[in-house]
Amino acid sequence: MDVRRRDLIDVALGHERADLAIRGVTLMNVASREFHPADIVVKGNRIAAVLDPAVGAELPPARETIDGTGYTAAPGLIDPHVHIESSMVTVTEYARTIVPRGTTMIAADPHEIGNVLGLAGMELLFTEARGVPLKIRLRVPGRIPAVPAWMETSNATLSLEDTRGMFDWPEAVCLAGDINPELVLGKDPEQLDKIEMAIGLGVTVSGQSPRLSGRNLAAFLSAGPEDSHVAGSVDEVIENTRAGMRSVLALRPGRRLDASHFAALARVIGERNLDTRLFQFCTDDIHANDLLHEGHLDHRIRTAIAAGIDPITAYQFATLNVAEGLRIDRDHGSIAPGKHADILLLEDVAAVRVAMTIIDGRVVYRDGSYRGPKTPYRYPDWARGTVRLAKELGTADLAVRAPGNEPAATVRTIVTGGRKLVKEVELPVEGGLVLPDPARGINALAMVERHRKSGNIGRGFVEGVGLQSGALASSVNHDAHNIAVFGANYEDMALAVNRLAEIQGGYVVAKDGEIVAELPLPIAGLMSEKPIEQVADEMEHLEKVLFEELGCPSREKIFTQLNFLCLPNIPDYGFTDKGLVETGGKLALLETVVAPGTAARQ
Amino acid sequence: MDVRRRDLIDVALGHERADLAIRGVTLMNVASREFHPADIVVKGNRIAAVLDPAVGAELPPARETIDGTGYTAAPGLIDPHVHIESSMVTVTEYARTIVPRGTTMIAADPHEIGNVLGLAGMELLFTEARGVPLKIRLRVPGRIPAVPAWMETSNATLSLEDTRGMFDWPEAVCLAGDINPELVLGKDPEQLDKIEMAIGLGVTVSGQSPRLSGRNLAAFLSAGPEDSHVAGSVDEVIENTRAGMRSVLALRPGRRLDASHFAALARVIGERNLDTRLFQFCTDDIHANDLLHEGHLDHRIRTAIAAGIDPITAYQFATLNVAEGLRIDRDHGSIAPGKHADILLLEDVAAVRVAMTIIDGRVVYRDGSYRGPKTPYRYPDWARGTVRLAKELGTADLAVRAPGNEPAATVRTIVTGGRKLVKEVELPVEGGLVLPDPARGINALAMVERHRKSGNIGRGFVEGVGLQSGALASSVNHDAHNIAVFGANYEDMALAVNRLAEIQGGYVVAKDGEIVAELPLPIAGLMSEKPIEQVADEMEHLEKVLFEELGCPSREKIFTQLNFLCLPNIPDYGFTDKGLVETGGKLALLETVVAPGTAARQ
Repeated sequence: MDVRRRDLIDVALGHERADLAIRGVTLMNVASREFHPADIVVKGNRIAAVLDPAVGAELPPARETIDGTGYTAAPGLIDPHVHIESSMVTVTEYARTIVPRGTTMIAADPHEIGNVLGLAGMELLFTEARGVPLKIRLRVPGRIPAVPAWMETSNATLSLEDTRGMFDWPEAVCLAGDINPELVLGKDPEQLDKIEMAIGLGVTVSGQSPRLSGRNLAAFLSAGPEDSHVAGSVDEVIENTRAGMRSVLALRPGRRLDASHFAALARVIGERNLDTRLFQFCTDDIHANDLLHEGHLDHRIRTAIAAGIDPITAYQFATLNVAEGLRIDRDHGSIAPGKHADILLLEDVAAVRVAMTIIDGRVVYRDGSYRGPKTPYRYPDWARGTVRLAKELGTADLAVRAPGNEPAATVRTIVTGGRKLVKEVELPVEGGLVLPDPARGINALAMVERHRKSGNIGRGFVEGVGLQSGALASSVNHDAHNIAVFGANYEDMALAVNRLAEIQGGYVVAKDGEIVAELPLPIAGLMSEKPIEQVADEMEHLEKVLFEELGCPSREKIFTQLNFLCLPNIPDYGFTDKGLVETGGKLALLETVVAPGTAARQ
Repeated sequence: MDVRRRDLIDVALGHERADLAIRGVTLMNVASREFHPADIVVKGNRIAAVLDPAVGAELPPARETIDGTGYTAAPGLIDPHVHIESSMVTVTEYARTIVPRGTTMIAADPHEIGNVLGLAGMELLFTEARGVPLKIRLRVPGRIPAVPAWMETSNATLSLEDTRGMFDWPEAVCLAGDINPELVLGKDPEQLDKIEMAIGLGVTVSGQSPRLSGRNLAAFLSAGPEDSHVAGSVDEVIENTRAGMRSVLALRPGRRLDASHFAALARVIGERNLDTRLFQFCTDDIHANDLLHEGHLDHRIRTAIAAGIDPITAYQFATLNVAEGLRIDRDHGSIAPGKHADILLLEDVAAVRVAMTIIDGRVVYRDGSYRGPKTPYRYPDWARGTVRLAKELGTADLAVRAPGNEPAATVRTIVTGGRKLVKEVELPVEGGLVLPDPARGINALAMVERHRKSGNIGRGFVEGVGLQSGALASSVNHDAHNIAVFGANYEDMALAVNRLAEIQGGYVVAKDGEIVAELPLPIAGLMSEKPIEQVADEMEHLEKVLFEELGCPSREKIFTQLNFLCLPNIPDYGFTDKGLVETGGKLALLETVVAPGTAARQ
C-alpha cells in the first residue's frame, strides 16, 4: 500500500508519530554526492524526512526506532536489466539471495520463460514475483521470438498488441531491447512500431548496440533506444556516452567488461572529469553459483570501487543513475523526503557489507535473517514437460553429412571466445559424416528444436569450446532455448540430448556412452525449484566435470559463454535449429558445408 | 512537424541526404562533459547523427551545409521558469530578444495575465507564442488566485478542472508552484489534489520553498514538489540539494543569488566534488531593460563561469539539467542522435557569444539577423481596459485613519530589502490621517483593487522604498496585479493612481501635483505592444526619475523589488487590497494601526 504523499506532511513536521525512525546514520547522499549525518523518518512505504540529527531529535518517538550509529545508510540498489530465469532458481530463491546483498529492486525481462511458455509463462513468473519483498519491475520484452521464424523456431510469439498489453501490468517500467540491432537499422516495421509505442507511453526504450559505432550507432540511437548493456570496451562506453546513450555496465569477470576495464574507465573519468550520470550497473544473466559466491550489484560496486571509481559515484551507478534511466527517480534511487523507503544500512561502504535491508519501510533483512517467504515456491505442472522431441535421437541425426565421397570436407565453423567469428576448416569424413576434430579444438554442435516436435536440427561445428571428449547438452540456450549440444563425438551428443529430454531440461554431460553429470531444470527447461545452494553446487559440479573429465580449458564461466554462443541477437553470427546464421549487417542462413574435399582444392 | 524517428535512420546511415549538416564544429558534449570535434547531421527537426568528422565526411552532401569551423556547438539553452509578462513586452518581442542570445526554449507560467484575464488571457499569450520560433512550453499555473479571496482580490479563478484542462494543451510540461508553501504545509486540499493530479500525469511538480529548512523542507518535499527557484543563499541551495530537490537558480544581481553567491557555490562544488545534476538556471521575472542590457540565460552562464563554475557544467545548468528536471530529456537538452536540433554555434564559450541559433533544424538567428515575425503583435481589444476603479480617488481614500485624537499613532510597517519584516513605528497624525514620514524612510503604501470596482483599498506603510517625495503607482504587482502605490504623500499617490487608470495600467510617477513620468502597459495592465527597445528606454527613464527626482536611494533594480514587495506568496508578509497580511507559518490579516499614540505609551 502506497502511503499518500500528503500523509507524510504531519510526520515530517513532527505533528504525528512516524512508523520508523533510523537515527544517527551517516547518510550516503547520492543527490549531492556527500556523506553527512542524518536521521531518517519513515511513514508507511515512504520517507517523510531526512533530518540533521539535531532537528530529528525534536520529533516525537517513532513506532519503531533503529539505532543507526556506526552505519552508513545508502539507497537500495536497483538493477535495471535482469533475466531471473538465467539464475536457474525461482524468483523466491533469487530474492532471498540478493536482498541481503542490498538489491531492493530489479527490472526483469522475462523473455526466457516467455520464449518457452509465452505470455502465460511470463505471468507465472510475475505472480511469483508479487510474493517476495524484492521489488520486481517488468521490462516488457522487446521481441519474442528474437528473430523471424525462418531463422529460428521458438515456442511463442508476442504480438504488438500483446506487447502493448504488457505495458498495462502494474510492474511495467520500460521496453526491453535485447534484440539484434539489425532489426532497428534495417527498419523492421514491427520493431519500430514498438519503440514508437513505448515513447508514446512515456517509458524508457532500452536497447543494445554491440560494437555499433559512428553512423550505425547514430542510426540506432536516433530510432529511439536509449541504453546499451553490451559495450565490450572502454572506448565503446565512451563513444556511447558521447552519443547520449546510457551505459548499463554488465561488469563481470569473464564477460564483456571486467575489473581491468573499470580501472581504465576510472582513469578516464578522473583525467577528463567526465560526467558519470549516464553510467549504470546491471547483472543481466547470472547463474546460481555466481550469484551466491560472487554476489549481485554489491559485487559490481565492490569491484568498481576497488578499480578506483569514487565510492559514492559507484553507488550512483546502481541507485540514482538507474532510477533516472528508468524514469522512476520521482520515487526511487535516493534517500530523500517523499521517496520510497528502500534503504540499506551498511557496515562497510567499500566492501558493500549490508547489515540491514529495508524495502518500503519494512526491515526485510537484518543481521543474517531474511524476512521473505520461507517455503519453496511450487510451479504448476503446465510449466513442466516443455522438452518435446519428435523422436529419440540417433547419432546420425546430429551429424553433418558429407556432400560427396571425399575423405574430408570444408565446413564453416563458428568461433567463440571474444567476438563471434566464422571460419572455414577442413574436417575428416567417415561413413558419409563430417567428424569433429577435438584435437584441433573443433567440436560438433547441434541445435535440436524442442518445443514443437518439428524435428528441426541445426548441425555444424564450433571452435573454442574445447571438449576433448564427451558432450554437453543444454536446454538453456538464449533466446529460443532449444537444445544445444556440443560434443567431441556424435554418440555422446545423442545420449546427452535423449537424457535431457527424459529429465525435461537442464544440463546433461555424457562421456564414453555414459551420463556423467546432470542438472535438471524442469520448469520450462530453464529453472529449478531447489534451493539456490543446491543448484549452485550442481552447477559447480558440472563445471568441474567439464574441466576435469571432458578437458575443457577453463573451469570458470564456461556456461556463461555457452549459453550465449548461439544467440542470434549478438552479431555477427548465431546458431539455431536452422543451422548457422549470419546476424551482423544482414540476417541470413549460412550452409555449414562449403565444399567436399579440402579447402586447398577449391 | 516532428520528423518520425524511423526516418532518421537512413540519413544517419548515409543512405539518404540530410537536410542540414554542420561540419567541423567543436562539440560541447553535456552528456559526457567534454569538448570534441564533430559533424552534426540533421533531418527535419531532429538530429540524425553526431559523427567524428572522418566518419561524417563519408556521408552524402546535405541540402544545406554550414561550415562550423572555429565554432563551438552547444545545445540550445532552456529556461525552466519564466513569466513572459514580467518583461512587459509581447511574446514576439521577448522571442526576438532572447533567441539571438541562445535561448531556444522557455517554460512559461502565464499566471500574471491569468490573474487579470483568466484562462482566455493565458490562451491569448500562447496563441501568440505559437507564432514565434522560440519553443514555449506551458508551466500550468499552480494557483490562481494566489491566496484565498479573504486575503486578496484577484480577477480570475482557475479551478482544479481548469488546471486539469491546461495539461491537455500541447505545450504543457509541468505544474508550476509559485505559491505560498504554507498552502502545502497547511495541507490545503485543493493544492494537494493538484500535486497528486500532476504526479498521476507523470509531469514535474514545481515548487518554491523560500528559506524552508529541516522538517519544514522535508514536509514540503514529501508532499511532492521537486524544485525551488527562490533559494537565497548557498546554504539553502546545499540543504535543498541534499534533500533531493532541484535548485532552479534565479541568479540575478540584486536578487536572491548573485555572482558572489556563485563564487561561493563554485568553491563548495570544487572542494566537495558535489554532484551538480540538480542545478539549473532560470530567469523567472525579468524586465525589458534588463533583458536587453544584461541578457537572458546567456547572462547567467557568463556570470557563473566568471564566478568559477566549470564552463560545461555551467551550460549543463541551462541544458541537460533543465531537460531532466522537466522530464523532456528524451528530446531536449543535448546534441545527440534523435534529439531535437536546437543548436547554438558559439564564437566564445565563456562569453556566451552566439553566432547562430538553430531551432528544430532551422537557422533562426545568424550573424545579427533574426528570422522571426517582423511585425509587432497586436492584442485584441478585450485584453485592454483592465484597470477598473470604482471611482476617481481622493487623498483620503488612500490614507490610514488615526483611531483617536492623539497627535501620533503606532502602526505596523512592512520592511523591504532582504527578508520581509514587519515592525511597529510611531507616525504623526494630521487631520485624522496617519502620515508617512519620508525623512525617516517611511512611505505610505496602498493597494487599490482594480479588477472588479469593489472599492477595496489596503492601506499601510512601507520602510525601505525610500521615496523622499512624490509617488509611484503600478499595475504590475504580483500576483493579483492590483494597483500598488507608494508615496511620500497621499496627494501624489491619488494623482498617480488616477492617471494609471486613465492610461489603463503600467507605471506612473507623480511629484508635487504633476505627472513626471509614465510607462503605459495597456495589455492587461502588464504588457506593452511597443518594441522592447522603447519599453526598455521608458523603464530606464522611470528608474532615473525615481532616483534623481524622488530621491530613491538606488537606481538599480528598484522595480524588481517593488513588483514583489507585496506578494503574499513569499513569506513572511505581504500587502494586498485587504491590507497587510501575514504569510509565513500561518495566513492572516494584520491591522495596520496598532494603537493611538506612541508605542512608548503602550
